[in-house]
Amino acid sequence: MASTQQPHDAPKAAKPTQDSWRIPTPAFDEPKIKVFNSLTRSKVDFVPKKPGVVTWYNCGPTVYDASHMGHARNYMAQDIMRRILRDFFGYEVNFVMNITDVDDKIIVRARQSHLLTKYLSDLSTSSAPSSRVLQEVTSAWTAYFLKAFSASLATPPADDSFEAASAGWAEVQARARDAAWVEQEKGKNEKFPMYFAAVGSGFEAVEAARKRGEGSLEDAKALVEANKDAMGLWLDKQFGASVTDPAIFRDLAAFWEDSFFHSMAALRVERPTTLTRVSEYIPEIVSFVEGIVERGFAYEGGGSVWFDTAKFEGAEGHKGAEEGDEEWRHTYAKLQPWSKGNRELLEDGEGSLTSTTGKRSASDFALWKSSKPGEPAWPSPWGPGRPGWHIECSVMATAVLGEGMDVHSGGVDLAFPHHDNELAQSEAFHNCRQWVNYFLHTGHLHIEGLKMSKSLKNFITIDDALEKYSARQLRFAFLLQNWNARLDFKESSMQEVRSAESLLNNFFALVKALAAEAKEQSVASDGQHHYEQAEKDLLAKLESAQLAFRAALCDSFDTPTALQTLLDLVSQTNIYLARGRSSTNIRAVLAVSEYVTRMLRMFGLGEGSPVEGPAGERVVGWGTAPVPGQEDAGVDRDAVLMPYLRALSSFRDQVRQLAMSNAASSDILALCDRLRDEEMVELGVALDDQDDGRAMVKLVPAAQLRAARDAKAALAAEKAERKAAAAAAAEQKRLERLEKGRVDPQHMFRTDEYSAWDEAGMPTKDRDGNEVPKSRTKKLAKEYAAQKKLHDEFLKEQAKAQA
Amino acid sequence: MASTQQPHDAPKAAKPTQDSWRIPTPAFDEPKIKVFNSLTRSKVDFVPKKPGVVTWYNCGPTVYDASHMGHARNYMAQDIMRRILRDFFGYEVNFVMNITDVDDKIIVRARQSHLLTKYLSDLSTSSAPSSRVLQEVTSAWTAYFLKAFSASLATPPADDSFEAASAGWAEVQARARDAAWVEQEKGKNEKFPMYFAAVGSGFEAVEAARKRGEGSLEDAKALVEANKDAMGLWLDKQFGASVTDPAIFRDLAAFWEDSFFHSMAALRVERPTTLTRVSEYIPEIVSFVEGIVERGFAYEGGGSVWFDTAKFEGAEGHKGAEEGDEEWRHTYAKLQPWSKGNRELLEDGEGSLTSTTGKRSASDFALWKSSKPGEPAWPSPWGPGRPGWHIECSVMATAVLGEGMDVHSGGVDLAFPHHDNELAQSEAFHNCRQWVNYFLHTGHLHIEGLKMSKSLKNFITIDDALEKYSARQLRFAFLLQNWNARLDFKESSMQEVRSAESLLNNFFALVKALAAEAKEQSVASDGQHHYEQAEKDLLAKLESAQLAFRAALCDSFDTPTALQTLLDLVSQTNIYLARGRSSTNIRAVLAVSEYVTRMLRMFGLGEGSPVEGPAGERVVGWGTAPVPGQEDAGVDRDAVLMPYLRALSSFRDQVRQLAMSNAASSDILALCDRLRDEEMVELGVALDDQDDGRAMVKLVPAAQLRAARDAKAALAAEKAERKAAAAAAAEQKRLERLEKGRVDPQHMFRTDEYSAWDEAGMPTKDRDGNEVPKSRTKKLAKEYAAQKKLHDEFLKEQAKAQA
Repeated sequence: MASTQQPHDAPKAAKPTQDSWRIPTPAFDEPKIKVFNSLTRSKVDFVPKKPGVVTWYNCGPTVYDASHMGHARNYMAQDIMRRILRDFFGYEVNFVMNITDVDDKIIVRARQSHLLTKYLSDLSTSSAPSSRVLQEVTSAWTAYFLKAFSASLATPPADDSFEAASAGWAEVQARARDAAWVEQEKGKNEKFPMYFAAVGSGFEAVEAARKRGEGSLEDAKALVEANKDAMGLWLDKQFGASVTDPAIFRDLAAFWEDSFFHSMAALRVERPTTLTRVSEYIPEIVSFVEGIVERGFAYEGGGSVWFDTAKFEGAEGHKGAEEGDEEWRHTYAKLQPWSKGNRELLEDGEGSLTSTTGKRSASDFALWKSSKPGEPAWPSPWGPGRPGWHIECSVMATAVLGEGMDVHSGGVDLAFPHHDNELAQSEAFHNCRQWVNYFLHTGHLHIEGLKMSKSLKNFITIDDALEKYSARQLRFAFLLQNWNARLDFKESSMQEVRSAESLLNNFFALVKALAAEAKEQSVASDGQHHYEQAEKDLLAKLESAQLAFRAALCDSFDTPTALQTLLDLVSQTNIYLARGRSSTNIRAVLAVSEYVTRMLRMFGLGEGSPVEGPAGERVVGWGTAPVPGQEDAGVDRDAVLMPYLRALSSFRDQVRQLAMSNAASSDILALCDRLRDEEMVELGVALDDQDDGRAMVKLVPAAQLRAARDAKAALAAEKAERKAAAAAAAEQKRLERLEKGRVDPQHMFRTDEYSAWDEAGMPTKDRDGNEVPKSRTKKLAKEYAAQKKLHDEFLKEQAKAQA
Repeated sequence: MASTQQPHDAPKAAKPTQDSWRIPTPAFDEPKIKVFNSLTRSKVDFVPKKPGVVTWYNCGPTVYDASHMGHARNYMAQDIMRRILRDFFGYEVNFVMNITDVDDKIIVRARQSHLLTKYLSDLSTSSAPSSRVLQEVTSAWTAYFLKAFSASLATPPADDSFEAASAGWAEVQARARDAAWVEQEKGKNEKFPMYFAAVGSGFEAVEAARKRGEGSLEDAKALVEANKDAMGLWLDKQFGASVTDPAIFRDLAAFWEDSFFHSMAALRVERPTTLTRVSEYIPEIVSFVEGIVERGFAYEGGGSVWFDTAKFEGAEGHKGAEEGDEEWRHTYAKLQPWSKGNRELLEDGEGSLTSTTGKRSASDFALWKSSKPGEPAWPSPWGPGRPGWHIECSVMATAVLGEGMDVHSGGVDLAFPHHDNELAQSEAFHNCRQWVNYFLHTGHLHIEGLKMSKSLKNFITIDDALEKYSARQLRFAFLLQNWNARLDFKESSMQEVRSAESLLNNFFALVKALAAEAKEQSVASDGQHHYEQAEKDLLAKLESAQLAFRAALCDSFDTPTALQTLLDLVSQTNIYLARGRSSTNIRAVLAVSEYVTRMLRMFGLGEGSPVEGPAGERVVGWGTAPVPGQEDAGVDRDAVLMPYLRALSSFRDQVRQLAMSNAASSDILALCDRLRDEEMVELGVALDDQDDGRAMVKLVPAAQLRAARDAKAALAAEKAERKAAAAAAAEQKRLERLEKGRVDPQHMFRTDEYSAWDEAGMPTKDRDGNEVPKSRTKKLAKEYAAQKKLHDEFLKEQAKAQA
């Protein structure tokens, strides 16, 4: 579209002299965004490398089991921060997340699961005697018992026979009657209760099978099922190395990845901008490891490649002039320097299948792991192998985001060694000083004060949680905590959430009802555009809340304070509303509710569409959250239903008024007709009254209904017109007849035609004095009688008129 | 929810040594928001007084006619800037707009329209001869002709007779055959074509009536209609002063205000946070004017109050220490100093009904205008009057926003004198240096290169435009221009808009189809998570577009550049997509389409909900804009509405049945209660009956309503139970009393205690034959009387029972 890019019509002649303007001085300093950075353990200014966009790498899940509340806490917290940056602070966020689908846990789980399924299906097709199955299960149970409880026995078992193990199990059971002993064992190994349960039920099944002797196929299968964990381990030990089909590992990972995203979707956690899978980045990983080796910070050993932490620590780094010309010394374990050399943490980070062959120092860690038979393997310069855990993230973040990023996030338990190793590898590879500028670690989750674990029976999957709470309630609970604090998820706190939810629901319902009423009143008569002191106070409170909310989010995403600000604002507005409907200025209330709505939705707490109506008005309220365990209708009921419900309510109002004033039934019937012919027609609803007294309801375009109604009215009018015309004609006839009857029959023949009459006025002689002939008299008598009838009627009408 | 506010587990012993972190250096300076400020006629840094919130006053419409494309351009441009500040830059905007419902244009229009309607309706009821109507219309036509064309005649008319005017009209018609002459006349008066048409058709009607002689009522009405404009002016001159009912002015304003907001809604222009009407702020205006008089910058004259521009110009102002301790000199006409003393602009700003009586200088302007008969008036210290135009905005902005604001906006034609006078008044009243920090003036609108005007037949109302283009197309066209540049609205440009719309629609349709395909494939097999160079390039383009888009909006809301950036990004993505479905990585494309969607919706170009599905996924695309002139089908109304409509219909059925059988009112009321407490509860609808007889309607979860209803019922039941218990106790007491009354007082003393009695049964002698002492007799009489009362009651009850 052509336009003079010249703004406005500048004066042609004289140069304007506008010299009075001064740049405004803000009333206070603009709050800066600060975030709690694990690299300093303090809140520091948030400065993205490219103003306006944020690059963010988040450690995604290792997919081998169902997602639980710990995952919910972690990914929800990141989702909330991502939304705040994008939808509140206006940054574009390139959010990258990986899926770890190559991992020792996945390998073990996939192999065991595969071997167990195969063992069971082989049972059905082969003719293995149940005695052989019993023997194998007994061996498995024995091995499992010894692994779990050897350390708990007063005297170690004599040998690895079933008998010795049985005696040991009897001892464990006896000692377990002492609660203090159980506590002590749990202290040594938190999985004690789980082992106790699994070993116990397995033992019973073995004992029963031994007593029974030869059993059915079903008996054998039940025996295996009862010793599932033991058999998984036993089979893996026997046949693990034979599992080579890569699909076995990939399928398990794919199944749980799918499950993970279903859970995330249920929690309204948005998908990452970019998702990376380890299995799809193996070539890049190999090159990256080669790069580190070339730079001298890694070495090959035993077919694996190890990162040389000692070499890296304190090594000199520098960038040339074209890259900023800086010098520095590399630092290992920037996040948790005090954890350097923590053997337990380090071992945990290496994976259960990793051998240490070739590793020079306990502090070193695997970049590339040589694969044994039964482990997935890819070709590499160091032989078939697979990536170490930490290297994955370095490589994939680099592949998508380049030589560094603004934000890296993950659960706090990943800080060491995972993230510290990632930093070391990446800074070694890229020869850079600071690969990650902001490391955000989300806090732990506890359940009713305790660490969540399967053995404590307080392990809650996301699916479990969503049966009891809505995604909104969970998010609300998480928002009420700082993202980097430990969060104690407990029933009493969920009560708080429910009452906050009620406060908001009641507020929005009231505002909607008031707004709908105001809309119904015509613009001409609402008279609600003057702000009194109460409205000015309310808007001042809104502004304060807006400033406080912004300040809270600037303060390292302080969502508890921000959310509380919104709840307080709603309470203050409720005080204003309590003054009553007639002293409510709906625009002032809408200003508050629109803001609260927008902020709640910004946090991801909204349901349904935030816009409504043909003019795309913003919705008041955060929508209706589906009730946990119940199906949801989906649509925005408010927008669709309200016009109809208002018609219903208003009809009922009027019926009540009429009934209370004991109005005539005809008035109530007229009201019923008007509802059908006016209000419902305009709403596009046909109410067709039927003989049985139950009207038929249809949705029909209003225009069509209007036409039908008007046609009906026209027809009725036409009929009425015809009736009126007939009545008028009849009346005319009556009047003519009356007029005719004005003449008394006594006088009707008193004309020149005759010369004599009897007393009734009947002619006796004609004008010539001759007698009137009989035939004529008869005719005249008839005329006389007719006129007499008319005259009598006339007299009667006259008498009536005079009465 | 209790939590250790301590982030993470800090090590207990050693102080962590994390000294390596350096604050990042951004790659380039963050773009600052700059706006083109009419106070400097340049782009200056945008600094709100309170960081995070923006106070904004926008000049709203004077409501006396239909809104046209000029309004669309103005309010749409402001709506776009408001959305950018809020939805892109994250400011909260307190957007205040006024409605000018007291104005000379409104007065004249309302009076003429009222008088003409009255004249026509008087014709129907009175028996005025058509000759009188002809005479009056002839006078009106003559006056109108002379007013319109006197100056265009070669020789002025001999007198003000119809004959002289007819001759003049013949001359005008003859000369008008010369196109050059017409152009010349249009140059002198742009309304020439309009007058030419109106005078011509009016003359024909007058001539026809004169030839016809006495005509019917319909003829007379047609004659008046054909000379509507002339008659309006003529009647106003004759009877204008007799129009005194304030409702006549208010109703016209209310009608056009309503129409204005309908047009704005159709254009997706959001409602202001606060709306102020002049008619509701008269007391504040009077005080404000008094304040200016007190400060010496205004004077009374002829019942009006005038602003003393000479006194204001250069006057010293200063604020005390507590307010910043500053000194300055007041400046008049900060926006257009070169327009000072421009008589035409000044007169135009004063209104057609304003007298200049009492005004000391042509540069002064009215703050308060004395009202003549036929003009609305409010009491004031200077006699009955009404506010001047400029003062309204000063007062209402002050009332809502206090002593100043960040932004003031309006059409560029309002800059002088309206906004300059507003600034002078407000800075005089508040004794402040800079009442408005940023004055944003939206540019003019031209149609096909010409100024829009009714006489040029290129006058387009918003309703006209929406018959041809969708609201989205209009907004898109406006976004393609800078808000402060002149915009030429032309058909060829709308073609550009349509092709951009197609580009986007096709892109979104393709992306949606690809995303749906990807979703159908299982996660396990999509294999689409590895980014190749093509994807990396695409994401790099996305990032560049994001940075360019931000920079454009920072540059005084440069929407043409920003929009073009999005269109270019889509074209680049189309090139990527053209490589074929099998080499498409859907996540990379979704990253682009999600961003483009979000930005288009941010501009207000979206239709329908931006979220979809149970997990609230973001919608791809900007929705389907309704086709101009067609009704929208919308949601599946059947499924949602039917349960509610069936309840409504059934309620009505029952009301009818009851009314037809002349049932008691109490039955109908019971029905009303049942609707509220049963049917509606189950449907999740709360009907809260109010004292004023109009129930409040809310949508509330059924479970919550059920609980509330049952609690209420339980309370009522408890109350009823207590009442019943009290009634039972009372009944028991009554029965006991009756039982006691069974004994006839005549027999009550017939015991061994006495030996003689009188006939009434009162003892006379005791068992020993002694007379009963007086004192005892007195006591016995009392007992007797009491028993008599009880016994009488007993007998009465017995008689009742036997009856």
